[in-house]
Amino acid sequence: MPQVNENYLKLKAGYLFPEIGRRVAAFTQQHPSAKVIRLGIGDVTEPLPPAVVEAMHKALDEMGHRDTFRGYGPEQGYDFLRNAIAENDFGAHGCDIHADEVFVSDGSKCDTGNILEIFGINNTVAVQDPVYPVYVDTNVMAGRTGAADEQGRYAGLTYLPCTAENNFTPALPPKPVDLIYICSPNNPTGAVATRETLTEWVNYAKETGAVILFDAAYEAFITDDSLPRSIYEIPGAREVAIEFRSFSKNAGFTGTRCAYTVVPKTLLGKTADGKTQAIHPLWNRRHTTKFNGVPYIIQRGAEAVYSPAGKQQCAELVSFYLENARLLREGLESINIQAYGGVNAPYIWLKTPNNMKSWDFFDFLLNQAHLVGTPGSGFGATGEGYFRLSAFNSREKVQEAVVRIQTYLGQLIA
Amino acid sequence: MPQVNENYLKLKAGYLFPEIGRRVAAFTQQHPSAKVIRLGIGDVTEPLPPAVVEAMHKALDEMGHRDTFRGYGPEQGYDFLRNAIAENDFGAHGCDIHADEVFVSDGSKCDTGNILEIFGINNTVAVQDPVYPVYVDTNVMAGRTGAADEQGRYAGLTYLPCTAENNFTPALPPKPVDLIYICSPNNPTGAVATRETLTEWVNYAKETGAVILFDAAYEAFITDDSLPRSIYEIPGAREVAIEFRSFSKNAGFTGTRCAYTVVPKTLLGKTADGKTQAIHPLWNRRHTTKFNGVPYIIQRGAEAVYSPAGKQQCAELVSFYLENARLLREGLESINIQAYGGVNAPYIWLKTPNNMKSWDFFDFLLNQAHLVGTPGSGFGATGEGYFRLSAFNSREKVQEAVVRIQTYLGQLIA
Repeated sequence: MPQVNENYLKLKAGYLFPEIGRRVAAFTQQHPSAKVIRLGIGDVTEPLPPAVVEAMHKALDEMGHRDTFRGYGPEQGYDFLRNAIAENDFGAHGCDIHADEVFVSDGSKCDTGNILEIFGINNTVAVQDPVYPVYVDTNVMAGRTGAADEQGRYAGLTYLPCTAENNFTPALPPKPVDLIYICSPNNPTGAVATRETLTEWVNYAKETGAVILFDAAYEAFITDDSLPRSIYEIPGAREVAIEFRSFSKNAGFTGTRCAYTVVPKTLLGKTADGKTQAIHPLWNRRHTTKFNGVPYIIQRGAEAVYSPAGKQQCAELVSFYLENARLLREGLESINIQAYGGVNAPYIWLKTPNNMKSWDFFDFLLNQAHLVGTPGSGFGATGEGYFRLSAFNSREKVQEAVVRIQTYLGQLIA
Repeated sequence: MPQVNENYLKLKAGYLFPEIGRRVAAFTQQHPSAKVIRLGIGDVTEPLPPAVVEAMHKALDEMGHRDTFRGYGPEQGYDFLRNAIAENDFGAHGCDIHADEVFVSDGSKCDTGNILEIFGINNTVAVQDPVYPVYVDTNVMAGRTGAADEQGRYAGLTYLPCTAENNFTPALPPKPVDLIYICSPNNPTGAVATRETLTEWVNYAKETGAVILFDAAYEAFITDDSLPRSIYEIPGAREVAIEFRSFSKNAGFTGTRCAYTVVPKTLLGKTADGKTQAIHPLWNRRHTTKFNGVPYIIQRGAEAVYSPAGKQQCAELVSFYLENARLLREGLESINIQAYGGVNAPYIWLKTPNNMKSWDFFDFLLNQAHLVGTPGSGFGATGEGYFRLSAFNSREKVQEAVVRIQTYLGQLIA
């Protein structure tokens, strides 16, 4: 019998969201008439922008006729989309990123996991804590960690605590690491790295020889123009950073699947014998050998995000969710619950009242208020005592959620 | 600087198809008026079936309205598609495969590469030779091989030669291995494993404790009802085999991207300390952590493949390409070139005339006949002196290709 990848057996039972799903399913089975409002998983609720739908209908018609049919496309993405990305997301913001440094993919979750394949197994890794679980789990699967302790911290990973005390801005690692994950706007805390913070990270990476894995999936929610939207706005970042972007949250693509990863040609690693080795050809090789491109229809939809109508419709979507975030945050504050994020990010990160444990608060909120959120401890040990609410829902349900929060949490606090 | 995955440096320069692309691009740049006919890469040319296009338009409209919009779906695929697959591709053929053993994905290329992650790094691997290069390259990337020799054979892999002499049916491995790739109908040789052959493999896997990775991406091209369409038609296969299927070739999805992998719950591996470990939960964990599902729109398109209209339209597509295959094969035979495959498969595997080297034959065909095929040696050392032609093109171009084959190859032989 083949031996399995032993590293998988180190994984803690159940990925966070399936566990939430199980608890919600059990509750709704017992209480079929309860009107549960979900502010848990960061899944959008509003339909695709009309410009996107229109572009996809057109592309679909092309696929239905022999003369305009398209088979395999370039694995890295069609030029029409790579050019639109380079121009709009980077060139327009003064970032020196070329279309052939953009790799179109089916999701940032996939990319942040798959990127690890091109790095050596002995690289050391730093993650923020709390953290998007996929960064950690994929490193466990790859074998870059030991076992987890009782708090769920894996041996060998460097955790960078993010708390209210440090304004959710982690200190530099106590000793150098090879790979550093930074997520900004942050999932789950909603904090956004300032230009000064990112400059500090880029300089640190240059000095220590680290590579930054910069996850900017929530970039569209930045409303404060002083905050950087891309790490490539920081001088020197082309030498030290890979950036992940997604159409999931700005254009509602969670069920439509399109994202991209930027690997600058100036980014270097080293080989076992100490020579430098460009990272770009390695990722290109991974991408062309183990991936076959995003559907043509979907790429045309993503391209439409950059059309004048698409831009306006996406901006409206983002504004809509940010208004939800404001309502949630202010609702929490109205009953003196400390809330963070939710201004340049679609997530509100709250301190649980009465120092409740995160999962206890989850159960309380589900059972009493019929609200689903995400326990902070699910994102890491430092998230214990915190809780994430997502702004992705209808206005009506968010307003109703605020009423329930005020009613049930108000009682809890009083 | 992070160390890179050293295994990538063992890969031979350039994946086969990019190398072909480079040579064709160089030729067409020098001869812009040449009417090149491409029978190289196995990419379809006919449009998506109308039933598929209609289903996708409908799904797209759902995505454009709030009440019917869908965000993240189940990573493993929607039940409507998993059920349709289990019922039509397995239940209808007497195979005991359940919907929750079907994992919908964006491609068999991706799946055959990604499946390796859940197996231990020290597993031994057998591949047919010639072989679909992705099986080999992804094992190299994962670190299961040593360096390549001059013929491109990687140390540590067991190659099972397939030649005209053994009717392209490989002998069992000389000593037991952990993982065995079988592709049937075969890419590149077009050979199809008989029921007897597959039974022998399943029994061998049971006896030796191997797992068979069965790639049935070209299953739709089987016209001979005595040939098995799925390995699960063979008793005992649920205990030893994973099967890969794709919508690329039967429904023209190469640019639309949908496939699936079957991992039976009865398939076991072992842990380092010798306990048995089910494979299904490991793949489920991989799939949910590093993948986010196929676009809803695309899954509705794939579902339509199983509608009465979809079935008929796909059958017509397959017949169309098989008629192309017949024309190519008979064209080759008319000038006494030995041709294999092309009956229950869309590939014709030919012996090069005058014992030409595969790449020399490629260059000859490109330069003289302006035809693009795939050099057999690109699929492995045993493929040297062979050449693959694909039946994926318009009738008109295939007919023209046959004329050119008869003209230029006829001269070569004469």
